[in-house]
Amino acid sequence: MAKIKVLRKVLERNEDQANLNRRLFREKNVLVINIMGSPGAGKTTFIEAMSNELKSQGIRVGVIEGDYEGSIDAERLSSLDIPVVQLNVNSCHLNANFIKEGVNNLPLSEIDIIFIENVGNLICPSGFDLGEDLRVTLYSVPEGDDKPIKYPVMFKRTDVVVITKTDMLAYFDFDIEKVKNQLSRLNQDLKVYLFSSKSSINKDIVEFFKLRLNQKRES
Amino acid sequence: MAKIKVLRKVLERNEDQANLNRRLFREKNVLVINIMGSPGAGKTTFIEAMSNELKSQGIRVGVIEGDYEGSIDAERLSSLDIPVVQLNVNSCHLNANFIKEGVNNLPLSEIDIIFIENVGNLICPSGFDLGEDLRVTLYSVPEGDDKPIKYPVMFKRTDVVVITKTDMLAYFDFDIEKVKNQLSRLNQDLKVYLFSSKSSINKDIVEFFKLRLNQKRES
Repeated sequence: MAKIKVLRKVLERNEDQANLNRRLFREKNVLVINIMGSPGAGKTTFIEAMSNELKSQGIRVGVIEGDYEGSIDAERLSSLDIPVVQLNVNSCHLNANFIKEGVNNLPLSEIDIIFIENVGNLICPSGFDLGEDLRVTLYSVPEGDDKPIKYPVMFKRTDVVVITKTDMLAYFDFDIEKVKNQLSRLNQDLKVYLFSSKSSINKDIVEFFKLRLNQKRES
Repeated sequence: MAKIKVLRKVLERNEDQANLNRRLFREKNVLVINIMGSPGAGKTTFIEAMSNELKSQGIRVGVIEGDYEGSIDAERLSSLDIPVVQLNVNSCHLNANFIKEGVNNLPLSEIDIIFIENVGNLICPSGFDLGEDLRVTLYSVPEGDDKPIKYPVMFKRTDVVVITKTDMLAYFDFDIEKVKNQLSRLNQDLKVYLFSSKSSINKDIVEFFKLRLNQKRES
């Protein structure tokens, strides 16, 4: 069927560009983290908090903001005084070509970690390699604790799940142990962290990102 | 570009099937309501509440559950003792062919209103006509009040927006008037309703669905 052939070509071309991106990130010793999740999962808030904390520790952060339309997330981040590029993609996901464009507009040799904020979507971004080092999926408590069962591909293809808005646990049906069990059945190597913008930052996540940055530099 | 040509063909074929679906729904005098929204917007809970209320008023309801994977929503609805069909689509949206399949498994002559629960997604479902009478987009308070700016196509192409989880307004940055203004700029004819599963049902929504059912029968 024509559609499938074309999709294969699109994915192959994406893979080629993703490999070029990966090579560039390797040369420049930049750790690239792809942040995914539903609309409203808290992606911008998470990137804001992580960028602030990493910056305070002397780590230089850049951000590629992917949105279907608009630039309010990039405007929010501009107060952090770090390099931010806004992409408007009119698509349900980012791809490796968009990232190439974004990266062309960032001062790569002055950056240690790039956060990519993907389009808010629990399905489409999972199929597209961007050349990133880490895939992080944000999953907010108000979404309810059945999402790994309904959107398994996203959770299978991610390295990290951050459960966000954990200050709301008392108000929603969200059993963290049940979710952790579902996730470990889908993906044994998955790391799961908790995050709330209302409490002090989860240092374990920051340390994990720093560890991965050092591992990349030493490898 | 090949991809676009194929996409056009896919959309044309979808439109043909949507028109067939629409003709069937017309013949059978069934009102069909396409429920869309992000993962966790509260689609199943809304359908459950509406179905219960309509059933108590003697209106016969059927449900087509569209999920990427799994059947937990259909299982939840089975306690309502109404016809429910589960579709697993491995796609980011339903299309008119899926609906044809679903409808083939419903006793159409014993149903007044069909609720279709689309796949949780604020982008992909907006482009696909299912042959429905009404498009209803659920938008939950925890998602934050910037979503119409970031996902305008979905809100432009819907007839109704239901703001859900309104019992959570005190805990999230969500200014209802601001959202209503954004929505009316995108789509002047849009109807906006509020809904919380924690309080008594919003009768205005029920009355609106009943009005549209009667209008369809009389037209």
